[in-house]
Amino acid sequence: MNVTTRLDAADLRQIADPAELRRIIREGGYAGRTGGLALGRVQANLVILPREHADDFLRFCQRNPKPCPLLAVSEPGDPTLPELGEGIDVRSDLPSYNVFRDGELAGEVTDVRDLWCDDFVAFALGCSFSFEEAIMAAGVPLPGNGGVTRIYDTSIDAAPAGPFRGRLVVSMRPFTPANAIRAIQITSRFPGVHGAPIHIGKPEQIGIRDLVEDDYNGAGPIPADQIPLFWACGITPQRALAQARLPLAISHTPGHMLITDRLNASLAVF
Amino acid sequence: MNVTTRLDAADLRQIADPAELRRIIREGGYAGRTGGLALGRVQANLVILPREHADDFLRFCQRNPKPCPLLAVSEPGDPTLPELGEGIDVRSDLPSYNVFRDGELAGEVTDVRDLWCDDFVAFALGCSFSFEEAIMAAGVPLPGNGGVTRIYDTSIDAAPAGPFRGRLVVSMRPFTPANAIRAIQITSRFPGVHGAPIHIGKPEQIGIRDLVEDDYNGAGPIPADQIPLFWACGITPQRALAQARLPLAISHTPGHMLITDRLNASLAVF
Repeated sequence: MNVTTRLDAADLRQIADPAELRRIIREGGYAGRTGGLALGRVQANLVILPREHADDFLRFCQRNPKPCPLLAVSEPGDPTLPELGEGIDVRSDLPSYNVFRDGELAGEVTDVRDLWCDDFVAFALGCSFSFEEAIMAAGVPLPGNGGVTRIYDTSIDAAPAGPFRGRLVVSMRPFTPANAIRAIQITSRFPGVHGAPIHIGKPEQIGIRDLVEDDYNGAGPIPADQIPLFWACGITPQRALAQARLPLAISHTPGHMLITDRLNASLAVF
Repeated sequence: MNVTTRLDAADLRQIADPAELRRIIREGGYAGRTGGLALGRVQANLVILPREHADDFLRFCQRNPKPCPLLAVSEPGDPTLPELGEGIDVRSDLPSYNVFRDGELAGEVTDVRDLWCDDFVAFALGCSFSFEEAIMAAGVPLPGNGGVTRIYDTSIDAAPAGPFRGRLVVSMRPFTPANAIRAIQITSRFPGVHGAPIHIGKPEQIGIRDLVEDDYNGAGPIPADQIPLFWACGITPQRALAQARLPLAISHTPGHMLITDRLNASLAVF
């Protein structure tokens, strides 16, 4: 495939092979969102840090497994993640990266090879695409067809580790009561990608005052016959990363994930 | 143990062996409730019917597995249930039986050997004691310490079979949001004893107008920080049995179950 020009998501949806998709992205052929691509494959959030802070971040993930479900950690200086796919290069295989300097977003780039250092460690974290796919595969309708998810800050403190700290961020999806029970059952099978919800109903108990006004995406009211389910969200480690104010850190740009070879279904624990 | 006089529940709680408990009950030594006895063992609801109606009732259970989770069915005329315990005699091993004539409760007796016919079939159905034990074992507090459970009629029709029909009856237990999610996870492992709840929150959707005024036990308001979970209830087949207006049918008296040898934990499907 000719990748000298940028492709759009419709082109890439025709391609089932995750390695081929990574190759196109690596060669600059696509810089868009990865939702809907390589259906059935795990997509991962990415965090890249200097080795000096890697132990603290690893401990932060260990202490907060629901917002920070670790799928793989690289060797220091090694940009591959062989557990997640042959030939993965975390410096180039994502369509877009956020670069943080002193905790501030300093830019969005499509490649971080020029920023990579010998002591960098890469962390791949599970994302909600995997459990959303499992919910839809069970015939349970997702609000907005898996489109815009509502995101809220909560009053719950994540367990800190070193400089990494902050409040838990949650994603919310409303369901009818019977589907809420199904969604809990289905997502409980996937602890590696946020797992079961952390809360149901009663948003005020976790510091959410207004379900209509979310903190990230605008959204209308929830249908009266539905109940909100709240999942720990991968924005939590992004926020902790900003709080840590490291001189240099890199993450995926939200919505622009690492496409791995692993099958979502392979993550099911029962 | 001398069983010429009646024992009380405190005496029987000292006895872990289910066969010994059945022996005491069979010999007339105990006619009380079985809750809290033989902890860890499955207790079963009982229905006894003439063979002529057994096929219809079996189909009713198959079509309504959540209120009617079948643990064992006897051979016609055979009062044993070897899958559930050696030496079980369903005619004598329960502390109390309800006898129905033409669908009306005609009496409560401690033994039905004199009513037993060669064509009777016994059905043992899972009961909520098993999943309540699993919830408590996980450190999730049950309302009223597993005491009085609230029971409600719903507007949901059970799937009929032959003369057996009626509305679904549910039991309700309130939990905090996080514990509600745990209770769904835990009870999902036990489909043989009612399994996951059928509904959460929003009682009006299943025809319950007033949670405070339940249909069977009086009960106060639910704490404001809790969410009601509704499980399909074993009273559903009792009601269907009454609706069928058979000339003669027998069941356990509510709360007076068959104590089996099976371990509750053995029912977990994952």
